[in-house]
Order: sequence, then C-alpha cells, then structure tokens
Amino acid sequence: MPPQDSSLDQFFMREALSLAQTSLGISSPNPSVGCVIVRDGRVIGRGATRPAGQNHAEIEAIEDALAHGESVAGSTVYVTLEPCSHFGRTPPCAKRLVDERVSRVVAATVDPNPAVAGRGFAILKSAGIAVDVGLFEKEARFLNRDFFFKMKTGKPWVRLKTAISLDAKTALKNGESQWITGEAARRDARRFRAISGAVITGSGTVTSDNPRMTARLECEGAPEPWRVVLDTKMALDPTARIFEGGRALWCVGEVNPEKRDAANKNGIELYVAAKKGEHLDLEDVLTRVAALDVNGIMIEAGATLSGAFLAANLVNEILAYVAPVVIGPGRDAFTIPALARLSEAKRFQLADCTRLAEDLRLTLIAKEN
Amino acid sequence: MPPQDSSLDQFFMREALSLAQTSLGISSPNPSVGCVIVRDGRVIGRGATRPAGQNHAEIEAIEDALAHGESVAGSTVYVTLEPCSHFGRTPPCAKRLVDERVSRVVAATVDPNPAVAGRGFAILKSAGIAVDVGLFEKEARFLNRDFFFKMKTGKPWVRLKTAISLDAKTALKNGESQWITGEAARRDARRFRAISGAVITGSGTVTSDNPRMTARLECEGAPEPWRVVLDTKMALDPTARIFEGGRALWCVGEVNPEKRDAANKNGIELYVAAKKGEHLDLEDVLTRVAALDVNGIMIEAGATLSGAFLAANLVNEILAYVAPVVIGPGRDAFTIPALARLSEAKRFQLADCTRLAEDLRLTLIAKEN
Repeated sequence: MPPQDSSLDQFFMREALSLAQTSLGISSPNPSVGCVIVRDGRVIGRGATRPAGQNHAEIEAIEDALAHGESVAGSTVYVTLEPCSHFGRTPPCAKRLVDERVSRVVAATVDPNPAVAGRGFAILKSAGIAVDVGLFEKEARFLNRDFFFKMKTGKPWVRLKTAISLDAKTALKNGESQWITGEAARRDARRFRAISGAVITGSGTVTSDNPRMTARLECEGAPEPWRVVLDTKMALDPTARIFEGGRALWCVGEVNPEKRDAANKNGIELYVAAKKGEHLDLEDVLTRVAALDVNGIMIEAGATLSGAFLAANLVNEILAYVAPVVIGPGRDAFTIPALARLSEAKRFQLADCTRLAEDLRLTLIAKEN
Repeated sequence: MPPQDSSLDQFFMREALSLAQTSLGISSPNPSVGCVIVRDGRVIGRGATRPAGQNHAEIEAIEDALAHGESVAGSTVYVTLEPCSHFGRTPPCAKRLVDERVSRVVAATVDPNPAVAGRGFAILKSAGIAVDVGLFEKEARFLNRDFFFKMKTGKPWVRLKTAISLDAKTALKNGESQWITGEAARRDARRFRAISGAVITGSGTVTSDNPRMTARLECEGAPEPWRVVLDTKMALDPTARIFEGGRALWCVGEVNPEKRDAANKNGIELYVAAKKGEHLDLEDVLTRVAALDVNGIMIEAGATLSGAFLAANLVNEILAYVAPVVIGPGRDAFTIPALARLSEAKRFQLADCTRLAEDLRLTLIAKEN
C-alpha cells in the first residue's frame, strides 16, 4: 500500500527517524528504531529502541504516553521499522499495538528479519488497523544499513573507519596521531563500534597503541563490540588491553601453545584462520565474524591492513572523519597498489556528510552495493 | 539599529541570499548582491548584480517589478548589501529607492567600500525610509569574503584550490588527473576563478597541462580572471594558452629579452619579481597582484607551489573539491615540511561543506583570519 504521503506524516516520521538516531549502537544487535504516537495532531508519546532485551521503540512510546496520562486508543503510530510479530527477547510489539487499539500505523519499512517480514503488518491489518508503509524508507534503511545487509546476505556489513587530516594523513611520520580529529568525532567513532558490533584491528596497532577499542556508550545495558585481532604469528601479549572484558577474538595463523593456554584462561576466543600467502585470509576471518551475533564489522587498523581490505573489495563503507588541518608528511590511511589508469580507481557514493564540531564525517558506500 | 528579526524577514532575506549566489563571479570585481522586493507579503521583484557596469541587484529587482506592472512604492526591499550611494560605473541605488518611494529597506550588512560605508543608509533614512541592518550579516559577508577582505586590508583574499581523492591525491603517479572530480565540481571551480578575479599557477603546470585557466561563465559580460604565471627562469613559451586573451601577468625572476619582446607583442604583462633564494618571493608577487582590480587570487598549482604558499602562511582559504574515490599511490596536493609535533599543524575552520553532484566542496578558512 502506498504511504499516505501528507506533510504531517512526513513531519512526524522525521521525528521518529531522529529518535531512532539516538539509540544507534545502544540497541545493537537490534536495529535502532524510533516511534512517535500522535492523537488529534499532537505528539503524546515518543520512544526509541532500548538495549537488547529491554523495550522496543513502540513499547517505549506507549509507556511514555501512559506515564503522562494519555490513552493511545485511536492514535496514529509513526515507527521507522515494522513492529515485531514474534516473541524474541521481548513480547511482540504488533500485538501490543492491537491491544492498545491504535487506529493507524505508519511504518518506514518492512522488517527484513525472517521472523517478522510482513507478519507484524498482517497482525495489525487483521485487527482493522490502517497500515501505511514506505515513508522515508530509504532513510530508515540507511540508518540501520548493517542490520539490513546482514539480514539480506547473512554477512556482516564491512565498515572501514579512518580519521584523517585534509591531506589524508592518520599520523605524523613520527607516529604522533593524538589527536587529529576532535572529541566529538572520536565519540561518534566509538558509537560506530557498537553499531557494527565488532571491531577488527591488526597486531601492529595493538603493539603500538595498546587500545581498548570499546564503545563506552553512556547508557546502561549498551553493548560493547567484539574485538577481533588479526595476529598471523600470534605475537601479541594475551594481557593486551584489547583482550580484556570478554568478546575478544584472537585470529592467528599459527598457534603458540603457551599463549593459547593464557587465552583460554583469560576468556579470549581463539581462531586459527586460513592463510593466503604470508597473511591471514581476510575472507576466512570475515566468515568467522559472521558467525558472531553482529550485523557489521568496523576495520580500525593501520594502512596495510586497511588497504588489504580495500584492495580485496571487501569494504562496503568507508567512514572517514576528516579534520580541517594540513599536516604534510605523515602516515597514509590505506596502502593499496598503484593504478595504471584513473578509470580503475575504487569509486564510492557519498551517502552522508555530517559535521561533528570542527570535523566532518563522510560516509562513502561502495558502488557495487 | 537592530534588525526587525521576524521570521518573514528571515524568509525573504534567505531568498535574497540565494539570488546573490547566482551572480557570484559574474559580478566581479563588484560584490554579488541579491534583492527581493515585497509588498503586502508578496514578492513583486527579484534581482541579482549584473556584470560590472550593468545594473546592481536593487535596480534589477525594481525593473523586474515594473516589467510586471507592479509599483514598488510602499514596498519593503530586502538586499544583501547596503545600497550604493555614489556614481560609480552606475548611478546610486539608494537614490533610486528614494525616488521609487519604498517604505523600508532591510539590508544584511553595511558596504565596506569607503565610497559607501553607511552613506547609502543615510540617504534612505533622510528620505524617511525605515532601515534595518544586520539580518544574516555573517552569511552575506561570507558570500563576498574576497570583496570584504580586500576592502578591509587592501590585499587580495588568497584561496588555495585543490581537487583531490579521499586519500588526498591530485593525480596518479603517472600524472593522470583527468578527471578525479566530476563536471559539476570543475564548473564550480571555474566560477571561483572569476570570483577571485585572478588565478596563480606555476610554470610546471603550464608546461605539463597547457591550461587556459579561464572561468567560461555562461553569461554575457561576465569577466575572465587575470592569469598570473610564476616562472622564475622565464622558461615558458609566450604562446602558451594561459597567456591568450589578455589579462595575463607573467612573473619572472630574470628576463629573456627575446621572450620579453614576444610578451609585449602579445599583450602579456611582465613583472620581474623579487627573489627569495631560488624562487620568486611570493609576498612580492601578491603585492603586484593586489594592484590589479581583483578582490582575490586563486592558487591552482602543483604540490610544490601550493605547499610554498601554505608553508609561508599566505593562504586565507583552502577550497577543496573531494571526490569519493580512493586512488592509492599518486601525487600529493601540497608539499610542506614535516612537522615535529601535531600541535604545530595548520588548523583551519570548516566554514562550508557543499555537495556538487558526486563530489564535495569543502571551504576551510585559516584560523588567523
């Protein structure tokens, strides 16, 4: 059914999309959904997806309305994703909307989850609720692109993150990189760790920076990402910070028995990956990551590993934080082989451009997607 | 007087700003101004500055209204710059507004031209016309930043233009650079040649690309920029395309008498610049350019000359066209000396970010401005 495309519908769906933004990362691996409940032209309830196992957006919005003494009977519900129809971690939202006797549901898009996939709409319609689907569908799908991609392909959405100067350097020649981008950009990048659900890095980065690569979202119950470390020779120290706190996957090409025992003791998962020449087979690593409960994976690595993913055409998205600064000679973001012709260059589509304080975030989507 | 800051005033001034955009470059060296005339809440006339010697925005808007059978008596005039008060290339706009008996003038900002500088407003006020100044002043000044800077300092606004891939390359290693950015970005860059009024390039670029570096704006009477060529050893051929069509300034460090005669014959202006070490003294070149009737100068050069301007802190603005493409090993945009500390890096302020088809235009303003 085509959406009832009035400007009021657009207005309220835009607010629902804004609400969905607020739970990005927090809701992982669930999609981030926003919901606005309107009666007599007035918003009476607002909600966004809570951390997994807690309320979905629709329930949050209903509870919000009820907490303010409003009845949602007869209302119109704007929601950025089809209400769920199944008992997962929570009871089905579609059933609750029926129980509350709402009049109309405007949804941005169908839920690709095979456990839903139109069943939510069917429940609503069979209860006599008017259902319109498709308003700001593109925006709603873009917002949860990791989730939609994983549902469609079974594979994680591969996001290559970089933080660069205008002249595309990630650090000075001497290695100094703290900080090219500002705090707002760095906080945003941490959120994308949670959105992705897993972070991939190389042993070089771990050795030089000893990073944690956690998301540290300020929300109780918000998830921390899997930390996936590529370490062909199993050269790292199992006490490196990146292995702390669980959800750490150590991908190696050969096993050091002593370090394996330490890994087992520290709760680090070990994966002996296939090799391709001198290095780990990146496709094999991605297959292992796909088996985790994550929708995406964010590459946060040096130029060599980042470039290897790019050169192998394994990158769905480049997430580039660009600082308005020129630093001259320094470290490149990605090492890829030289091209013979410009027409061979990897072209992306500029899907989004957002300011974060002094910096810029560019979202580039691979053309083949 | 503070502006009467109603949302209607904002609405109409935004339209005036949009109109001003349309004449950017076309009006050089005059500022680009937009004008909207409103009576009874309805727009009855619109105008933007025509090429120098033709109508200013206010006259265009009045003529537009009259051509449609509207009287402008009693109207409100929204204009992005103070109406002029002097006989320059055209009669004063302030006098015409008085003659037309408009009721109110809302102007974004005062005209810094010492021949105006408040006199336009004084003429209006003494005729009993209400005058409000300051609405969207920042935006109006940004739009004509070259003009405001030249009026304030007597020096041209120095704009460093670059067209780069996401990894900040201007060409492949083999030199192929056509094209990294698309047609919309390239057309926009040509317009900035006219906005600046002068383009500076080096002998290397002329030798390798034989460019014209003209603006080619599709508007009769629109100006072409001065082409300023830095050629220390006077090595170029006086028949190079960049010297064609007048308004060419050949800056050399030593004179070849035969080429000088050819330059004279071909209408090329010659300037023997001071030297600083092996190269031309860039400050001396800029001083010579300041004597031309231009508000700005756009550097369109290779990495060495571009980097020299940056390293000498002579750049007010970086105009960077960024294509969503990764090309790997290639030519850098600017060659500057390595930094010892990140805190020494040249920081800019991201003043604007605009999409141009597939590409992005970033406008970075030097922090010291």
